[in-house]
Amino acid sequence: MATPEFEIRPALIKGDLSDAYLHWTKEILRLESMNPKVLMDFVAGKDGILCGVEEAKSLLTNVLPKQEASANIESDVQVWALADGDEISAGEPALRVIARYASFGLYETSITGMLSSASAWATAARECCEAAEGTTVIGYGARYTHPNVAQVIDYASVVGGCSSVSTILGSKHANRNPLGNMPHNLPLIFGDTVVAAQAFDKHMGLEMQRIVLVDTFRDEVEEALNVAQALRERLRGIRLGTPKERGGVTPMMVREIRDKLEKLNFGHVEIFVSGGLNPDQIRNFRKAGSPIGGYMVGSYISSADPNNFTADIREIEGRPVARKGRIPGRLDGPRLDRVI
Amino acid sequence: MATPEFEIRPALIKGDLSDAYLHWTKEILRLESMNPKVLMDFVAGKDGILCGVEEAKSLLTNVLPKQEASANIESDVQVWALADGDEISAGEPALRVIARYASFGLYETSITGMLSSASAWATAARECCEAAEGTTVIGYGARYTHPNVAQVIDYASVVGGCSSVSTILGSKHANRNPLGNMPHNLPLIFGDTVVAAQAFDKHMGLEMQRIVLVDTFRDEVEEALNVAQALRERLRGIRLGTPKERGGVTPMMVREIRDKLEKLNFGHVEIFVSGGLNPDQIRNFRKAGSPIGGYMVGSYISSADPNNFTADIREIEGRPVARKGRIPGRLDGPRLDRVI
Amino acid sequence: MATPEFEIRPALIKGDLSDAYLHWTKEILRLESMNPKVLMDFVAGKDGILCGVEEAKSLLTNVLPKQEASANIESDVQVWALADGDEISAGEPALRVIARYASFGLYETSITGMLSSASAWATAARECCEAAEGTTVIGYGARYTHPNVAQVIDYASVVGGCSSVSTILGSKHANRNPLGNMPHNLPLIFGDTVVAAQAFDKHMGLEMQRIVLVDTFRDEVEEALNVAQALRERLRGIRLGTPKERGGVTPMMVREIRDKLEKLNFGHVEIFVSGGLNPDQIRNFRKAGSPIGGYMVGSYISSADPNNFTADIREIEGRPVARKGRIPGRLDGPRLDRVI
Amino acid sequence: MATPEFEIRPALIKGDLSDAYLHWTKEILRLESMNPKVLMDFVAGKDGILCGVEEAKSLLTNVLPKQEASANIESDVQVWALADGDEISAGEPALRVIARYASFGLYETSITGMLSSASAWATAARECCEAAEGTTVIGYGARYTHPNVAQVIDYASVVGGCSSVSTILGSKHANRNPLGNMPHNLPLIFGDTVVAAQAFDKHMGLEMQRIVLVDTFRDEVEEALNVAQALRERLRGIRLGTPKERGGVTPMMVREIRDKLEKLNFGHVEIFVSGGLNPDQIRNFRKAGSPIGGYMVGSYISSADPNNFTADIREIEGRPVARKGRIPGRLDGPRLDRVI
Amino acid sequence: MATPEFEIRPALIKGDLSDAYLHWTKEILRLESMNPKVLMDFVAGKDGILCGVEEAKSLLTNVLPKQEASANIESDVQVWALADGDEISAGEPALRVIARYASFGLYETSITGMLSSASAWATAARECCEAAEGTTVIGYGARYTHPNVAQVIDYASVVGGCSSVSTILGSKHANRNPLGNMPHNLPLIFGDTVVAAQAFDKHMGLEMQRIVLVDTFRDEVEEALNVAQALRERLRGIRLGTPKERGGVTPMMVREIRDKLEKLNFGHVEIFVSGGLNPDQIRNFRKAGSPIGGYMVGSYISSADPNNFTADIREIEGRPVARKGRIPGRLDGPRLDRVI
Amino acid sequence: MATPEFEIRPALIKGDLSDAYLHWTKEILRLESMNPKVLMDFVAGKDGILCGVEEAKSLLTNVLPKQEASANIESDVQVWALADGDEISAGEPALRVIARYASFGLYETSITGMLSSASAWATAARECCEAAEGTTVIGYGARYTHPNVAQVIDYASVVGGCSSVSTILGSKHANRNPLGNMPHNLPLIFGDTVVAAQAFDKHMGLEMQRIVLVDTFRDEVEEALNVAQALRERLRGIRLGTPKERGGVTPMMVREIRDKLEKLNFGHVEIFVSGGLNPDQIRNFRKAGSPIGGYMVGSYISSADPNNFTADIREIEGRPVARKGRIPGRLDGPRLDRVI
Repeated sequence: MATPEFEIRPALIKGDLSDAYLHWTKEILRLESMNPKVLMDFVAGKDGILCGVEEAKSLLTNVLPKQEASANIESDVQVWALADGDEISAGEPALRVIARYASFGLYETSITGMLSSASAWATAARECCEAAEGTTVIGYGARYTHPNVAQVIDYASVVGGCSSVSTILGSKHANRNPLGNMPHNLPLIFGDTVVAAQAFDKHMGLEMQRIVLVDTFRDEVEEALNVAQALRERLRGIRLGTPKERGGVTPMMVREIRDKLEKLNFGHVEIFVSGGLNPDQIRNFRKAGSPIGGYMVGSYISSADPNNFTADIREIEGRPVARKGRIPGRLDGPRLDRVI
Repeated sequence: MATPEFEIRPALIKGDLSDAYLHWTKEILRLESMNPKVLMDFVAGKDGILCGVEEAKSLLTNVLPKQEASANIESDVQVWALADGDEISAGEPALRVIARYASFGLYETSITGMLSSASAWATAARECCEAAEGTTVIGYGARYTHPNVAQVIDYASVVGGCSSVSTILGSKHANRNPLGNMPHNLPLIFGDTVVAAQAFDKHMGLEMQRIVLVDTFRDEVEEALNVAQALRERLRGIRLGTPKERGGVTPMMVREIRDKLEKLNFGHVEIFVSGGLNPDQIRNFRKAGSPIGGYMVGSYISSADPNNFTADIREIEGRPVARKGRIPGRLDGPRLDRVI
Repeated sequence: MATPEFEIRPALIKGDLSDAYLHWTKEILRLESMNPKVLMDFVAGKDGILCGVEEAKSLLTNVLPKQEASANIESDVQVWALADGDEISAGEPALRVIARYASFGLYETSITGMLSSASAWATAARECCEAAEGTTVIGYGARYTHPNVAQVIDYASVVGGCSSVSTILGSKHANRNPLGNMPHNLPLIFGDTVVAAQAFDKHMGLEMQRIVLVDTFRDEVEEALNVAQALRERLRGIRLGTPKERGGVTPMMVREIRDKLEKLNFGHVEIFVSGGLNPDQIRNFRKAGSPIGGYMVGSYISSADPNNFTADIREIEGRPVARKGRIPGRLDGPRLDRVI
Repeated sequence: MATPEFEIRPALIKGDLSDAYLHWTKEILRLESMNPKVLMDFVAGKDGILCGVEEAKSLLTNVLPKQEASANIESDVQVWALADGDEISAGEPALRVIARYASFGLYETSITGMLSSASAWATAARECCEAAEGTTVIGYGARYTHPNVAQVIDYASVVGGCSSVSTILGSKHANRNPLGNMPHNLPLIFGDTVVAAQAFDKHMGLEMQRIVLVDTFRDEVEEALNVAQALRERLRGIRLGTPKERGGVTPMMVREIRDKLEKLNFGHVEIFVSGGLNPDQIRNFRKAGSPIGGYMVGSYISSADPNNFTADIREIEGRPVARKGRIPGRLDGPRLDRVI
Repeated sequence: MATPEFEIRPALIKGDLSDAYLHWTKEILRLESMNPKVLMDFVAGKDGILCGVEEAKSLLTNVLPKQEASANIESDVQVWALADGDEISAGEPALRVIARYASFGLYETSITGMLSSASAWATAARECCEAAEGTTVIGYGARYTHPNVAQVIDYASVVGGCSSVSTILGSKHANRNPLGNMPHNLPLIFGDTVVAAQAFDKHMGLEMQRIVLVDTFRDEVEEALNVAQALRERLRGIRLGTPKERGGVTPMMVREIRDKLEKLNFGHVEIFVSGGLNPDQIRNFRKAGSPIGGYMVGSYISSADPNNFTADIREIEGRPVARKGRIPGRLDGPRLDRVI
Repeated sequence: MATPEFEIRPALIKGDLSDAYLHWTKEILRLESMNPKVLMDFVAGKDGILCGVEEAKSLLTNVLPKQEASANIESDVQVWALADGDEISAGEPALRVIARYASFGLYETSITGMLSSASAWATAARECCEAAEGTTVIGYGARYTHPNVAQVIDYASVVGGCSSVSTILGSKHANRNPLGNMPHNLPLIFGDTVVAAQAFDKHMGLEMQRIVLVDTFRDEVEEALNVAQALRERLRGIRLGTPKERGGVTPMMVREIRDKLEKLNFGHVEIFVSGGLNPDQIRNFRKAGSPIGGYMVGSYISSADPNNFTADIREIEGRPVARKGRIPGRLDGPRLDRVI
């Protein structure tokens, strides 16, 4: 996918979103006239898929002093990094900044935050995609995360392998079209799933695929056939999201619908499954041989534990340093590429 | 704490951070000339501490049509809610909106996102505070979450019971002063903890408490005494954050420092503990009788699983409705107060 | 309940259903002209509800030499027993026979078999009834056990506390009317649940309660309402048996049906639940507050492990004896009553 | 083994052992003049050894309208089946009946009962035989099951692989001679194991093998030698059934007896083990290298959980049907043979 | 029990059994002319029963410079201690030595060794005695420990609560008579248990109780009666030690013997149980109501994990000191009594 | 290693350390004029490394009647044995004595005790050595065992694979030099680790390696460098024994010290680790790639459960005998060598 443009908010550049003690550190060093050139490594806390590097680069591009990116690796300012989507191991550096401390020290915790959140989401998305073994996975994590990071979770979901995502900005950011789907409120307001499906079909442009939610009122098998008969060849798929309170979506329900769709010549209609899915459940559907068109995953991605990145100064004016408990000097980073 | 002012970003109001299918739903209903008055309940997925209501109210205030908030509960637009910091149970409504669908339907997933994230953080903070049984807990979760939500996690930490938080905007938002503390990079750049402490002491205003990190270079007990002798009565506390790789902070380390500080008449110096703390570890410190001044908690708060809020239309034009698997009609909400 | 009449088959009296070595033992003793008066205790293998005593008494009455049952406890033939439905403990005698060996030795394993099977079924039924705390439990175990014991399992289910049972002979035996219910094949053959219900209603005598199975074709909630509207005040209840493949019967499904029945003034219609129920699941329905009319239990009763009864000669001509590993002499049996 | 003749009781044919609702169904259809030709599949609930088919065939032969069993698979009445002793998988059809509903619908639960009980027993017997790896296993399950099914459990034990069984009718049914063994009561009444053994030897025909129980009074090793010296070459084996209360039969006890029998030239005497044996214990004896002549298994077979067979109408007048949760149409049954 | 006399071997006093580095420490200090007065605390590693103090006192009495034990707690040499048999908690001092380092430093690890081994054994013995709730426990641990510590384990067993012990020196040391018992080799050599018992009875003085082992050849119940009939009123008890290979000693075996002894008027004969007993098994015998005369415990005591005592210098010339990880200064020891 | 000389104490030969009933057995047989030639096998209770045979041989040499050890295996007295350090399996004979009973019966439990204790210690030492995969392991078990067995545990540790041990007599016995190490008390008394190290260096002969304990006062890394700078090329190694209360010794601490030693050209200084080590922890250090010079193991060896050896008479005057539960006759012992 093309590199997206990240919004770098003024409050971020001003440091308002940084830990206060980074401001004090900057101020104390200024008053002591100290501003050494340091090498800082941003290091993964656990194995997973890396994400957040592009956004961190956007921030650093905004704040680091401009210079020619040259082959001269001795130049004053350097940024080295892995790429969003790379696999990363616990203890491996994902990002290395070499610059005077005052030019970027303020952003240490903002950058670890970007990497920690986005890598966790990308890793969870990847796990679902691997469980799905090639079947489409659609990211729906935004609804359980704060809207301020909606486009970030959607971008990370696509980095992890999702085919499409749910929010307007996240879809644009990730350069994907959102799935032509509907919320429960649409049939609820219309009072009938078929009527709602027909309204959707009537008003939406033909470029949008029709995927109709069939678990709102009646038995899912019956409703799927009703909808198929109403929209016929214009129906791209049906979506199942039966709640746990009613037994959830089961592999046999999918097979029953598939069987009946085939028997009535609706072989083109795909079945999309949603509702608290995780990799184990996706594997269960596969093991049961359920013929699924796509898995819609929300809370598994949004509730992924952050991959806690840490930032350590490893060299000061070229001299190896480290706090107690770490080996002084820059970490091995043979896969890092120079990006600034 | 005074009610903070939440930044409501234009992209949020425009719906760019919403799921795309909410836009389509709005558009289809408009083309069908349907805009019923609906009652929507936002319902907690699990027990915990509620947070995110204030921010949701700010958003709704921006988007709902203005009217007089009156005692007339039949008026067209109503918002009922619990308050940030309230305990909430699984299945209980935290927020109820009664309005024409077109005026707020677009924000359904933004609001569930606000509530889901912030409630999880507040709940985790509360668990730490309960484990600490009255001892100060300081929220340091921002470093492992995306900076776009830094002020939100800091606000939620204070709602959950934290005494102070780490970011500039979060502290301002929560109306607290951040703790007068330092990162490892300050002693690392100075090359010596005592020198760094003296610089901090020299340049920082007296209104700021001096809390010095003592695990960067030497044995923590030795360094604590060195710092106490250098700053004497101006030293408010020392901070311990020994990494796991060196055995972590142990209850006996705290007792040893406490014992030696007392013997040297530094009884006024408090000991702050940090480093991957969770409620169990806090209870262990308490059980071991370790005399702690404050616990600094980061990843336990930031990695809390979202409390997945769901939004259901429960009435349309006053008529009880529900999707399959739910009982039609508005939920019991005797604790809800009218807020708009 | 009145004592039922047990069918004592000729093959049983002839000893064809006995272990062969009992025949040889009888023959050897006859040839040696030995026929001592022995006391044999039939002892429970584990705690539970006792059943099978009535049937054993019927057998013994057929085979033991007749005499006057007198207060003279020294008379030649005596049978002492607890009653069907009594609680019994591991190691406790349920039945004691005092008679010449040749008159009953042949039936030792037939009697342990009667007690072992029937006590297991009665115990399982009791566990379900206790879990149901007063709500009706209906025994449906016959379908998973050999028809030769259909009336025995039905009798034991009623001894354990079931309100009614499923087979013709079992119901007669236990003096209960079977529940006015239908198999899946009835709506399947009619092709529609409402039509099947109407045929049932048309042809069955009014003394039979109408309980209609509503999970054959459509959503259970929808079908329950359809049936209620068709049979109205003549409908006694609906039965749910949604298979595991479709999520099973859930507490919320029951509440949803209950809620909608009430709203439509069908408060008199009860909800019967079936489908692999066990005491834990019954407790779950209760804990969830699901308003259930009755639980239909099959495989939990029929698959109960036999309570392995053993038979030991404890006295020969009044002299205490025992095989190695047992204390010689009759067991304590203060609760035993003389029955022959 | 030759196909046994099953006793088909009049009450069974009359339907007295059937669920009452099958009678009502038959009656309703009759009054509606409906009697479609249906295809019913009887399907295994779990993997195991199939048993009960022969008995079901005997029942069906009695009740189905007579016709020529022809190669014409379109003839009105057909029965297809696997054979007793076949391995069967969960979800596989064991029996398929194609006939007008009224001619056999009444027996649905009687047939599932036959298959469920007998298959469970045969499977348990098979597990013991596989654990014994070729060593003789003798079925003794009748004592812990109701005598009405004594011949059925004995027949199923032989289908599962047992060499012989214990009851008169079961042995005849399975066409096996019962093992020449004795109950504890024989030595108990004689007061001495050797005297009892001698009486057994004196009175029993020479075609019967002498197997003497040696755990009634004294140390098993000592008693085994006493018995061997008394019966010498006429002794076929000794049986051990030491109760749990005295430590049970141990592998070392077997080896000790074997060793002493060999040293005294009683190498022809075999050792039979009994007493709550299950496959794990049988494997333990084998692993310990204990030289065993035969394992006598009772409660493991009799307490086997029923393999819950279900019966589903899959076609009505040639049209695929199914209740919700099942795929309409006849199941795959390539191994089924036409038997009627 | 009277305080025993401990053998203090010359090699112990010479320091040959001490860690070599203690010799070097002593030598270095001598060459540096350093010999401070120190306070050393010997501290328990876990909760349990204390033992080894008497032996440590014997050693210290031999090596410390003589002085008047006075009320003047400021005198040069002091030893404070708890007593053998006291309960002790993890972290509690059991022994405190205040003296010049050169006079006792060499014995640090010898003393921790005495305390660690003996306390473990006494604790295990105590656990058995508590499980026995007043019934006699006899210590037989010597056979599984090196003979050099035979008298120590026997002494510790008595400190823990055993009534008697097995070795000559251990019994003398603990001032108890060993139980009048026999090894398996005695009946083995005689070839018959009764003959061996008669020889024992004939040659042993009447002051020795006759306790005869009855599990060597025949069934234990039978042999117990044989022995009782041979020795009659001179028989004090029988011992059971049936090996695991033959099912071990079971509660029912004890009850059977007890029952038969009573019936034959041998009520005075007690039953002693042995064979890998531990507290759980002792509790099982009690729970089963087995009337036991005494439990003989060996490997449970001898395999007890050492209670690892550590020795720390806590004061030097009255000044509190400690290694890192410990709080400087003498521990709380309110229960310590001055013993030297 | 050369065969050590074992001290055979007079009390041992006199039988004072034997079970009293062995004395009585000897006396009874003497009075009955019975003294058969017996074969006694000493048999391992579990798998492990054998130790204690040399000491048992020393004892037997002292007590058995002298004769020529000849090739004539029919001679009166024979001793066959495996060797210290051999692997042994549960049930395998380690030692076989063929002699008249009176000449050695008294020592049965002394010999089982020697074998049980020493084999346990040797086995535990071997497990540590295997975990260390070639890295030096030093035995420090004496401090947690009674000093009477100090030389035995040290000898067994070397048999199990330890390179050196801690006590004077144990080292001499095992023919090894103890490691040139120091206790915590040395730096504690000097008040400073460097000063203590310098005194050690000044006074100890150059043949002794200098290994300095660096965890007494300050950060281990800092102190290790201080000591290296003070002793320079004369420093052989540093020892780490950080207590659990301060987080213990961690793999990263070792790597940090190693890294800094290398950077300062102290590559010759090795790192010795101590403090409650067991095989799992040793494997953890290896897995973490920590460059360790040696592991010092104490309590894991000293707390090893005894390998309970038993002694059985298997032949009397050439005739196979055995107690119940064992097969009569000598065990298979193809690996046994004649040693007396």
